[in-house]
Amino acid sequence: MSVTPLKTHRELVDSRVPGCGFPGDIFSRQDVFDNDVDVFFNKLWILAGVTADVPEPGDVSTVEVGKASIMIVRDDDENIRTYRNVCRHRGSRIMKQAGKASVGMLVCPYHQWTYELDGSLKHATHMGQDFDKTCKSLIPVHTKVIGAHIFVCLSDEPPEDIAKLEQVMTPRFAPHQMQRTKIAFESELIENGNWKLVMENNRECYHCEGTHPELTNSFLPEDFGFCPDGLGEEAMKNYDAYVARNARNREDWESEGYICELFESLDESVHTNFRTQRLVIAGSNESQTLSTKVASTKLLGDLQRRDLGDVHMWGHNSWTHVMSDHSIVAFILPIAPDKTLVRTKWLVHEDAVEGVDYDLRTLTEVWLATNQQDADLVANTHSGTQDPAYIPGPYSKYTEAPLDQFCRWYDARLKAQGI
Amino acid sequence: MSVTPLKTHRELVDSRVPGCGFPGDIFSRQDVFDNDVDVFFNKLWILAGVTADVPEPGDVSTVEVGKASIMIVRDDDENIRTYRNVCRHRGSRIMKQAGKASVGMLVCPYHQWTYELDGSLKHATHMGQDFDKTCKSLIPVHTKVIGAHIFVCLSDEPPEDIAKLEQVMTPRFAPHQMQRTKIAFESELIENGNWKLVMENNRECYHCEGTHPELTNSFLPEDFGFCPDGLGEEAMKNYDAYVARNARNREDWESEGYICELFESLDESVHTNFRTQRLVIAGSNESQTLSTKVASTKLLGDLQRRDLGDVHMWGHNSWTHVMSDHSIVAFILPIAPDKTLVRTKWLVHEDAVEGVDYDLRTLTEVWLATNQQDADLVANTHSGTQDPAYIPGPYSKYTEAPLDQFCRWYDARLKAQGI
Amino acid sequence: MSVTPLKTHRELVDSRVPGCGFPGDIFSRQDVFDNDVDVFFNKLWILAGVTADVPEPGDVSTVEVGKASIMIVRDDDENIRTYRNVCRHRGSRIMKQAGKASVGMLVCPYHQWTYELDGSLKHATHMGQDFDKTCKSLIPVHTKVIGAHIFVCLSDEPPEDIAKLEQVMTPRFAPHQMQRTKIAFESELIENGNWKLVMENNRECYHCEGTHPELTNSFLPEDFGFCPDGLGEEAMKNYDAYVARNARNREDWESEGYICELFESLDESVHTNFRTQRLVIAGSNESQTLSTKVASTKLLGDLQRRDLGDVHMWGHNSWTHVMSDHSIVAFILPIAPDKTLVRTKWLVHEDAVEGVDYDLRTLTEVWLATNQQDADLVANTHSGTQDPAYIPGPYSKYTEAPLDQFCRWYDARLKAQGI
Repeated sequence: MSVTPLKTHRELVDSRVPGCGFPGDIFSRQDVFDNDVDVFFNKLWILAGVTADVPEPGDVSTVEVGKASIMIVRDDDENIRTYRNVCRHRGSRIMKQAGKASVGMLVCPYHQWTYELDGSLKHATHMGQDFDKTCKSLIPVHTKVIGAHIFVCLSDEPPEDIAKLEQVMTPRFAPHQMQRTKIAFESELIENGNWKLVMENNRECYHCEGTHPELTNSFLPEDFGFCPDGLGEEAMKNYDAYVARNARNREDWESEGYICELFESLDESVHTNFRTQRLVIAGSNESQTLSTKVASTKLLGDLQRRDLGDVHMWGHNSWTHVMSDHSIVAFILPIAPDKTLVRTKWLVHEDAVEGVDYDLRTLTEVWLATNQQDADLVANTHSGTQDPAYIPGPYSKYTEAPLDQFCRWYDARLKAQGI
Repeated sequence: MSVTPLKTHRELVDSRVPGCGFPGDIFSRQDVFDNDVDVFFNKLWILAGVTADVPEPGDVSTVEVGKASIMIVRDDDENIRTYRNVCRHRGSRIMKQAGKASVGMLVCPYHQWTYELDGSLKHATHMGQDFDKTCKSLIPVHTKVIGAHIFVCLSDEPPEDIAKLEQVMTPRFAPHQMQRTKIAFESELIENGNWKLVMENNRECYHCEGTHPELTNSFLPEDFGFCPDGLGEEAMKNYDAYVARNARNREDWESEGYICELFESLDESVHTNFRTQRLVIAGSNESQTLSTKVASTKLLGDLQRRDLGDVHMWGHNSWTHVMSDHSIVAFILPIAPDKTLVRTKWLVHEDAVEGVDYDLRTLTEVWLATNQQDADLVANTHSGTQDPAYIPGPYSKYTEAPLDQFCRWYDARLKAQGI
Repeated sequence: MSVTPLKTHRELVDSRVPGCGFPGDIFSRQDVFDNDVDVFFNKLWILAGVTADVPEPGDVSTVEVGKASIMIVRDDDENIRTYRNVCRHRGSRIMKQAGKASVGMLVCPYHQWTYELDGSLKHATHMGQDFDKTCKSLIPVHTKVIGAHIFVCLSDEPPEDIAKLEQVMTPRFAPHQMQRTKIAFESELIENGNWKLVMENNRECYHCEGTHPELTNSFLPEDFGFCPDGLGEEAMKNYDAYVARNARNREDWESEGYICELFESLDESVHTNFRTQRLVIAGSNESQTLSTKVASTKLLGDLQRRDLGDVHMWGHNSWTHVMSDHSIVAFILPIAPDKTLVRTKWLVHEDAVEGVDYDLRTLTEVWLATNQQDADLVANTHSGTQDPAYIPGPYSKYTEAPLDQFCRWYDARLKAQGI
């Protein structure tokens, strides 16, 4: 028994029964995790922040991606730039810890090597006259700003299909003027589960009804997942009404220029995995609040209309909801095979005033509760998948099809890297 | 030096000098630990609880065995059943954490898949009409109740010699009517040492005199271990008196039907390792209390007599003492190479009333102190065995022979699994 | 990618570009750490304490070196002896934890095996008449006391060149009568970095100006590191004055018998890596205090003169400063690849009285602050070296040459062990 060689990462992936989940080892093994970080967080585009993280020139937001650390910087020309947070001298972190700061230049705390906001090395004492500063600039990171979203790619060869995401999302975000937002609140939550279980949990709402009383307030029941089998006449009538209502909303919104249609880039061929759609919100159709009404009376951009539903966007490390009054932007960063950081930011109009235009509790209570509920589910599932008795069960064809799709995409992305 | 291959688990076992302990690596290596969990906790019968953990139908006691979690359930027919705590859908834990609960049905918190207490899947929404619920029952675990002791075996092929334990122990437990008990107190202690060091410590009382002032109050000095070498005339006289007293007690008890004789199933041929004997208690011969008198005046079952000594039982993951008034049942569960959970339960008559029939402190103070003292010794020894200077020393032939026997049994059980 | 074999420790060492640091894996890999502990802490002489740790017969100071634990003992003849802290019976620690105690004999807490202060086993009960106590003495550790410094070597074949350290340091320590000291204060600090980064940090003062406002008070600016390139006329004049001042001091001190000259044993051929020099202190030239004046008015030994500068000594696991009034002795012990314990002891004259001859805060504030500042730098650098973007940068030829030398010595010592 002790001589059975461990399955390779590839063998684990291949052992999946189509329509079922992955075997437990894929969520816990360090070697699999290292590959995952390399392929899904270092080689692909990931969401790493929003423009409101660095509102002013000299602002720095430091983000840790696995063992890597990056500095997102607003330079003197108001451009967003990103650098590896590693001094070119002896490797010291330049920004000591994850979080935000405001600086004049980027100064290494070890020996005061000093870099301009454009990454060039300006000062380094004691290095002698033959020392060539020009080859010791900070290492830049590929950066793409779409709406308020800052996507980065740590690879030297970033996938080109980020252009598709930009093309699709730019006009959808446009009416909400995402760069004219500020961060009203942000939260960090470490979930005790593998990052893939966090994403699987995010990609189905089969669990919503039993778990999320706050969030489901703003969901239509049919959004939780829909299985046509065995529905009675009454249920079919309700479903037809749901379809009709959605169609009416779409027609209304599209007529005013708000793009609604579903767009998916989720299959095996894409590098940059995303999905978007403008969804109807239950009740008032305004916002993901307990009341379904706006949390901020100062609407985003120059919007005049409150009932604009929810521009939803998935990435492979993020989820976003943009409504007329606010947006939540959440993204995940892997910490360990069984630990995943979830960062959530609540954005409101840059001129909105807390206590006047919005109440912080009303704004945040739905997703603070939802995130914690999801964290409990993920921890519970991570633990169960590590049980020797775990046999991956079948996904529902009706409510969990995106999970099967995620597994196929995961498989393809590994294969593309020779794994 | 860095190229010397690590010894295999088998080579480590074989490197033991007969009469001495195992080399240090056998207590710390993760691969050895994984094998140990598989062979000694997953393939053999282990003690996992007592019937009083689940007194009523619908009661569930969740126990973690390595990465496995099991649910011990009292079903509607009052039978004890045990299931793997893993949902057949996506692997979520059904009971979120170790501990006790009372349920109507076993409902997975993730998507509300709902199982009957007999393990069958009753409800699963959104799965479609072609979904066959009958092949998605909870996975059952082999379970054997002997007295109040719930033994489980996670293997598909549980060792048959549990029948010998049942045959031997049933009449010994019978006068104490163990199933008519309740749990007066239970404790959890995580010892910072390998599970085998915890068991070695339990199987010798050479250390008792210097460590356990509370416990040794109820022990005859000769029980601490006995070495005939170099005893003076006085000491030999005391020893003869000890032997005579034991013989008198045995005769007395046997004449009333209380089985006393030593029974051992500890050698290399047995799967189910156990030992039992009715032992004399010092002083009043009643109970393992500071005073040696009963802690509960409501005796177990229908017993009328207090001075019944101590029905002692060892298993490879447990130790039990049953006296006229109460019983302590302790079992261990491995957490990591250097971490072992010790669970101890104090059982009294189901109708005994705290503060009336027994005082909780009097009942528990001896073993609470003893467990903590043992934990300190085990941590200290675990640390020392990891020192590069550790050379396994000789067991005393007089007071530590059971440890050498345990090593041989451990060796044989691994061999039987091809290790 | 997942099939690329890990580099060996040797390959990591060989991949270093001369003049630059080591690759990141050398600071984090467990196998590298295990080799390091074996070669640099178990096979070479290390500093493990001072004579004032065990002032009286029966005093024991227990020190953990990796997984090893040693007991430094003052025996009945006032000699310092060192033993492995492992009972010859079942491996229990004899002293339960690191720290100090005073004992009559060394008694194992498990079964009371009792050893004399000379290491011989005096008592062991229950072992039978054929048990030979003489081959169960405590395992001794090679010990060399030089000044107040207790060097130990855990190897059976300790490097002979400790004789050079003894020869060089004995006359330098002599006027300070180091064995007539007591410990006024000691501190423990766990730095979150590899031991080699702790030592690299200690061997350059390039970082001092930006980091250590307290320590640099007693340093001449030129001591921080000196790069002649591009110095203006003014700077060159200052430098000439610095050189002249040093020369005057040296002449003065040498004329009174205080050895000053630099002695280095740092190259690839030596086992016992050390460096010493009597350095000028800024300001009053007395002591490493904020004021640069003595912290203790009771000078060491029978010294009459306060301005004796700083007898500095590096070892590969220690740094020492001996001044006229006090000494700080610091040494490191590896805990994990990314954790290093730094122990610092402040020694004053054995008859000095706190509150009368010295004020504890004045005595300790400089190095308490310095150690904490260094700990922050080391943690920061350890983290950065683990970043996939880390490329070891160039050492300054002027201020970091000793680091390049340390790398070469490290390389040679591994090679000598076949790594």
